[in-house]
Amino acid sequence: MDFFPSALDNLIDKFASLPGIGHKTAQRLAFFVMSLPEGEAESFALAITEARRLLRFCSVCCNLTDSEICSICGNPRRDSGVICVVADPKGLLAIERAHEYHGLYHVLHGVISPISNIGPDDLTIKELIARVSDGDIKEVIMATNPDTEGETTARYLGRLVKPFGVKVTRLAYGIPVGSSLEFADGVTLMRALEGRLEL
Amino acid sequence: MDFFPSALDNLIDKFASLPGIGHKTAQRLAFFVMSLPEGEAESFALAITEARRLLRFCSVCCNLTDSEICSICGNPRRDSGVICVVADPKGLLAIERAHEYHGLYHVLHGVISPISNIGPDDLTIKELIARVSDGDIKEVIMATNPDTEGETTARYLGRLVKPFGVKVTRLAYGIPVGSSLEFADGVTLMRALEGRLEL
Repeated sequence: MDFFPSALDNLIDKFASLPGIGHKTAQRLAFFVMSLPEGEAESFALAITEARRLLRFCSVCCNLTDSEICSICGNPRRDSGVICVVADPKGLLAIERAHEYHGLYHVLHGVISPISNIGPDDLTIKELIARVSDGDIKEVIMATNPDTEGETTARYLGRLVKPFGVKVTRLAYGIPVGSSLEFADGVTLMRALEGRLEL
Repeated sequence: MDFFPSALDNLIDKFASLPGIGHKTAQRLAFFVMSLPEGEAESFALAITEARRLLRFCSVCCNLTDSEICSICGNPRRDSGVICVVADPKGLLAIERAHEYHGLYHVLHGVISPISNIGPDDLTIKELIARVSDGDIKEVIMATNPDTEGETTARYLGRLVKPFGVKVTRLAYGIPVGSSLEFADGVTLMRALEGRLEL
């Protein structure tokens, strides 16, 4: 398209490279940014640079943080004997939102996925083992996603962690609260039956 | 949410301020940008700054450009006797994509909208009148959107431009090509009947 200047085309391409953003949406976003006062556009650009520059992995749990240790690992009121293993910071966020878990986390930054060429060495498994081998951990909760790759990763980690004499658990499968049996798939129902609890 | 560092929260907020981007999508986009190599995140930020810094309005048609005159106004093969008036650069883009129009444009950067407090003085109407009064223009095509505000703006401009002895036209209303009569609304059908052409 030679009727838009290259700086604009470039910005549209950048937006279009984001996940789930098609060319039309990218165009809309680029025009919106162009319509912002220069200071606001500037501060958008700065937010990207700063976030990318300041953020790093917590040296304990590998969550994103802007200091050496993240606010969860640095919180003395959290139970340091339990580690909840999540695939990414979004998983951590989801569990934090439930306001029910008071232990620590370990962020893998991915799951084992041969199809995407992600093996155990690409995840923060070394760091997890180091934490568990330190000896103060009583339980490791696997909270990867309930899909094939999440499941495989959880089983793989379970085998690695158990020899340290640590209790290894997995989030329960079952019917989502507030949903209807009618819409539950067969595998979920089977798991819900298997995991049934006494009333 | 105190479990994310403020630089990340800030970036999520910036994405969420874009039109049509909710909080969850903003989070996804921010995490994606964080996962980019630092150079790529940097070049995203730079694309915003550069686009906002380099782009300005063409001194003739008010389209976005990075030089004094945009590539359409500067193209000697385009018919400089016809001006197509569009509300914004997206309108221009849509018409260019049809590869059928070879005249020049005029970008209003909005439409008259009392409800959004946009009056004639907020648009590039002065500039349009200046072009028309120069004398070489034979026809002005109104190509604002076919809604109330676009229509009002087109009529308003038509009244301003006609005294200069210029032919003023409006894009035809009718059934979209490839669509079905069944789905056409009554007003469109009425306009299609009114504008019927001899075969």
